[in-house]
Amino acid sequence: MTPDEFRCHGREAIDWIADYMEQVEQLPVLSRVQPGEIRRRLPDRPPQQGEPFESILRDLNEIIMPGITHWQSPNFFAYFPSNNSGPSILGDLIASGLGVQGMLWATSPACTELETHVLDWLVDGLGLPERFLSTTAGGGVIQDTASSAVLCAILAARERVESREQGAGGELVAYASTQTHSSIEKGLRIAGLGSNSLRSIKVDPQWGMRPDRLAEAMADDIAAGCRPFFVCATVGTTSSLGFDPLRDIGQICRQHDVWLHVDAALAGTAAICPEFRAMHDGLELADSYCFNPHKWMFTNFDCSCFFVADRGPLIRALGIMPEYLKNQATQSGAVIDYRDWQVPLGRRFRALKLWFVLRWFGIAGIQQRVRQHVALAQEFAGWIQSDPRFELAAPAILNLVCFRHRGGDEVNQQILDQVNASGKMFISHTRLHDHLTLRFCIGQTNTERRHVEQAWKQISEAAENY
Amino acid sequence: MTPDEFRCHGREAIDWIADYMEQVEQLPVLSRVQPGEIRRRLPDRPPQQGEPFESILRDLNEIIMPGITHWQSPNFFAYFPSNNSGPSILGDLIASGLGVQGMLWATSPACTELETHVLDWLVDGLGLPERFLSTTAGGGVIQDTASSAVLCAILAARERVESREQGAGGELVAYASTQTHSSIEKGLRIAGLGSNSLRSIKVDPQWGMRPDRLAEAMADDIAAGCRPFFVCATVGTTSSLGFDPLRDIGQICRQHDVWLHVDAALAGTAAICPEFRAMHDGLELADSYCFNPHKWMFTNFDCSCFFVADRGPLIRALGIMPEYLKNQATQSGAVIDYRDWQVPLGRRFRALKLWFVLRWFGIAGIQQRVRQHVALAQEFAGWIQSDPRFELAAPAILNLVCFRHRGGDEVNQQILDQVNASGKMFISHTRLHDHLTLRFCIGQTNTERRHVEQAWKQISEAAENY
Repeated sequence: MTPDEFRCHGREAIDWIADYMEQVEQLPVLSRVQPGEIRRRLPDRPPQQGEPFESILRDLNEIIMPGITHWQSPNFFAYFPSNNSGPSILGDLIASGLGVQGMLWATSPACTELETHVLDWLVDGLGLPERFLSTTAGGGVIQDTASSAVLCAILAARERVESREQGAGGELVAYASTQTHSSIEKGLRIAGLGSNSLRSIKVDPQWGMRPDRLAEAMADDIAAGCRPFFVCATVGTTSSLGFDPLRDIGQICRQHDVWLHVDAALAGTAAICPEFRAMHDGLELADSYCFNPHKWMFTNFDCSCFFVADRGPLIRALGIMPEYLKNQATQSGAVIDYRDWQVPLGRRFRALKLWFVLRWFGIAGIQQRVRQHVALAQEFAGWIQSDPRFELAAPAILNLVCFRHRGGDEVNQQILDQVNASGKMFISHTRLHDHLTLRFCIGQTNTERRHVEQAWKQISEAAENY
Repeated sequence: MTPDEFRCHGREAIDWIADYMEQVEQLPVLSRVQPGEIRRRLPDRPPQQGEPFESILRDLNEIIMPGITHWQSPNFFAYFPSNNSGPSILGDLIASGLGVQGMLWATSPACTELETHVLDWLVDGLGLPERFLSTTAGGGVIQDTASSAVLCAILAARERVESREQGAGGELVAYASTQTHSSIEKGLRIAGLGSNSLRSIKVDPQWGMRPDRLAEAMADDIAAGCRPFFVCATVGTTSSLGFDPLRDIGQICRQHDVWLHVDAALAGTAAICPEFRAMHDGLELADSYCFNPHKWMFTNFDCSCFFVADRGPLIRALGIMPEYLKNQATQSGAVIDYRDWQVPLGRRFRALKLWFVLRWFGIAGIQQRVRQHVALAQEFAGWIQSDPRFELAAPAILNLVCFRHRGGDEVNQQILDQVNASGKMFISHTRLHDHLTLRFCIGQTNTERRHVEQAWKQISEAAENY
């Protein structure tokens, strides 16, 4: 594709996306295809000769689009959002065009330095502890996901405990609440510690970890000769947006010299508004922290910000230096080589899209949208509470409302299926207190009051049958 | 950013990239900034109010661009390439615009089905063994990098050996040649097996693993009570593009029931040309295989294709199913949920850019460019051989030429520094037989004969001083 062809087809692609942005609200949110339906429409073999761009766009429209679930629909209320925005898409586009590979500072200094800088900006913007600044012993790095971030935290924690207690016996054990994300167990399995190394700590009625139970579990393990090495506290659990009490948990971790990782994948973005920062109280006791701009900060997937208070154990756990990557800048010690802060070697210039987002919206622009989402969720929760057929299943603190019809699991399953089948909205579910519970999360960039109103109308109508 | 603003700024971004494509050949390939220079030009704090797109593009040009090393310059001959192309950039752009998250089949069926389909196409296009097709017990998945792919292979291999030999004692040990990629050791460390679990097997004079030494090492380990579980064979090592003999290695692995992973990150793409497929002889004995379209198949980073012959152990190692992700399609067993084939939970619609590349170029278009790169490298190797000042340091088989000036390490270091400082080209180095060796790799999408000629002129002139 010559530069001139690129200009022409690039405009077609931009217009295609702008058209999509205009139309997405009208499309059935949840794809309606059956398993295998997309594949059956694709040719069995790759094309021998190249094809015109128009054919590709035609097949995109005719074959691929029916198989899309529209995460960017303002009527998408399922899971946690994975939102995007114009400036993010264009920042990412320019990163694709530059095509630099930032494994080392030397392989594109701006890729590393902009990343370090923007992550320092976020420490400021979110009011995070200063020990996460790159100007201290710590610093931030962009990972693909919070799952990879927690794996890196586990590896750094293991490195720290093993270097401190060389040759010490005793099984390593980790702690998280019963509500923690599945990536903690997955990370422990990947690290070779196994599912059995994870202790599930009971939660309080608001779905936050009980520090007394954590302290007990740790004391029991120590008495049994195990070595507590890692706690994951969650700021906004996936099921119900429960908040673990960081200060209490942090003090227990300090007492036993245990690494505290804080996973705020979704909720962290809310800290850009000072009024929501109470959830981070005690965060200065954490060794690492993660939140995902690709969830709620208008930055398209993937972009997960991971901060450590001490980069030493992380780099010792993940650093490696073959001859063919040696270079003066690395040897000078004056630069960061992010290769040593992550599992993969290669890395994309992801800081660019985050920089575009922060520049285009400004802190105030992000605050305004986050506040609007939270206000809409609160309004929705109010509607639930004032309807005798429904009940809240968890406190609705930020932008997630967990609720259910009082008629039991079967009724809730039918409401879920009916509203999702309507195509007009998409919500997901969880189980709380062993009851099927509906989850309504507001975080798509363009969700407005009318979308939430329409969704409530759908749910309310579906409930009329019971 | 409204859809109309997106149309307008999107065109500016497209034109920016097209201009970059036209100009990149003239830019100094290796960035000349000093550590900290980019950061010093960025404001200390994030902007409070949003800024116009023009300001962002201006700062991109003035602040960021001087810190870019131009991987997309046709004069980039360093490391291995990380190339891109117009159709790939536009496919990736549309993936950003759609913003779907393909963790489950259900969260966007087309994201999963196109990926499965395109990876099956590549089995066909590259002439890979049929056991890697999704229609068998195996199948393919896109990972971010070959490092993540090998980590997944290690985890699947461990799962397989542990489920077969429940409770068996004996340390798990892995094998790779002395020339293997650093990600093998890193993967073993991440998995908790440690660097000591890796046996480095000697190579033959062509830098391929010696199967006799592998067999000996395995026999010794078994005699010592260890459990061999994993071999990584490399098709095209990073240092010198050495090729491990897959058939011999595969037979040894079969004999001892050891997982064979084949890492063809760079060289795999060449298999699209039937005349280069001899390097894959014996690949049907492998349990997993990986090559990176983001290196040499005109698909921008990240895109690493990972194939397994049996998806069972991979999914057992990485599968996890919390309540909030349960869905009918998964429970029916009729779909693939790629979340269970990788470390992260979330995933981007990366198949789209690969599909755009295969459609736009066609198999013939990719073959033509690969053949041209190989022919140019062969021609360059010929120039080296006919110049008495230089010698080849390894066979020049595909698109990498390892060579050195006969004057010793210091002379080679000076030639390296001088040609890279010229801005007209960028090459990297390695050490072979403990001699500093220059690496010249041809793989950038737009490299033509004139660029290679000019590079040889630079090198030749730099050598005139010695």
